[in-house]
Amino acid sequence: MTLTSPHIAAPTERTRVRRLPKRGHYDRETLYAVLDAARWCHVGYVIDGAPHVTPTLHWRDGDNIYWHGSAASRMLRKSEGQPVCLTASLLDGYVLARSAFNHSVNYRAAMLFGTARKVTAADEKRAQLRLFVEGLFPSRWDTLRPMTAQELKATTVLTMPIDEASAKIRTGPPGDANEADVPVWAGILPIAARPGTPVPAPELPAGTALPAYLRALLDERPSD
Amino acid sequence: MTLTSPHIAAPTERTRVRRLPKRGHYDRETLYAVLDAARWCHVGYVIDGAPHVTPTLHWRDGDNIYWHGSAASRMLRKSEGQPVCLTASLLDGYVLARSAFNHSVNYRAAMLFGTARKVTAADEKRAQLRLFVEGLFPSRWDTLRPMTAQELKATTVLTMPIDEASAKIRTGPPGDANEADVPVWAGILPIAARPGTPVPAPELPAGTALPAYLRALLDERPSD
Repeated sequence: MTLTSPHIAAPTERTRVRRLPKRGHYDRETLYAVLDAARWCHVGYVIDGAPHVTPTLHWRDGDNIYWHGSAASRMLRKSEGQPVCLTASLLDGYVLARSAFNHSVNYRAAMLFGTARKVTAADEKRAQLRLFVEGLFPSRWDTLRPMTAQELKATTVLTMPIDEASAKIRTGPPGDANEADVPVWAGILPIAARPGTPVPAPELPAGTALPAYLRALLDERPSD
Repeated sequence: MTLTSPHIAAPTERTRVRRLPKRGHYDRETLYAVLDAARWCHVGYVIDGAPHVTPTLHWRDGDNIYWHGSAASRMLRKSEGQPVCLTASLLDGYVLARSAFNHSVNYRAAMLFGTARKVTAADEKRAQLRLFVEGLFPSRWDTLRPMTAQELKATTVLTMPIDEASAKIRTGPPGDANEADVPVWAGILPIAARPGTPVPAPELPAGTALPAYLRALLDERPSD
């Protein structure tokens, strides 16, 4: 990972966190930790003046963000060369306070603005798709049936530099300790995405071993 | 729940699912099941021609969708009276195929288009906030310190009718059974959001019981 600068460019009109500014972060380390943990994002783009929001997987290579899909995807066709907002968020828990007003959520969100560019060079596209798969399932790429030229052509990869971005994070207990005399349970209900037991494809030959990278994901699951 | 019609109005230019149309759904039952399961959504809106995407919690009352926040929120101020796209999605699993190209994700997504309207009547606003809290934590509202007029005023609730919308869903195993001779594990890695052990607020009086609705959430957790 190459960091051109530990800090994103100074907050802009649209990346500066106004509401509760203490929740805003503009350093690459914090931002990238959120982006890399989320994996699933929502891309906003504009068609005929109207906002559209499409979920997809993203990945990061140094100071650039990537997402992909079918070359026929409307989201990708309408985003290329256009301003986009890519937001990746994790809901980490519900914050239960003594009043409805002080309820909240713990979350991590990264919001990136830029203009989407299509990765056109076949070598670069293949290298990025490899990075994407390896980021999810380390060492899987070389065990797969190799990608064909036609498949590569049918895949669009979009990217943009990460230079107008911010993270917004809330952690910790409810903020109403001053109302602790209200007789109601208060605290955090944590939420986390958790991998379940892998389900083999119906036609998978009996005895095909579960790869180490999947076993590792299961072993890393938090106990309750 | 009142259904004006079992079907959303006919798909429009922007709600019709083009890529893989068999994944598209336009009936309210399917759409509402996705919306109600997701709880966490991403709202897209346009400022100065540029898309912005902000995560928030949503709730549904019949054929209307709601979201809320601080009256000072830029997202809410810039969305009111404007076209928005509210997308709620659940990542249900990774689909591991024999080729990189056939990898996919299982997911459920609801995409709603409309013009956001502010709920102005205090009674309606309070009733919706109550519905929101009760939808997450049934019977909690009446145990809370009551909402003050000032708190109600400081909260903005936005809504729009659900009439231009679609759901997109992928389920099931990888689609490359024809390549079952490739010697690599293939199948589904399920992913699910899971509540963890509740963390009491530091100042919570000892002996405060965990409410039944939180115990129920923990009891409903899937075993692995």
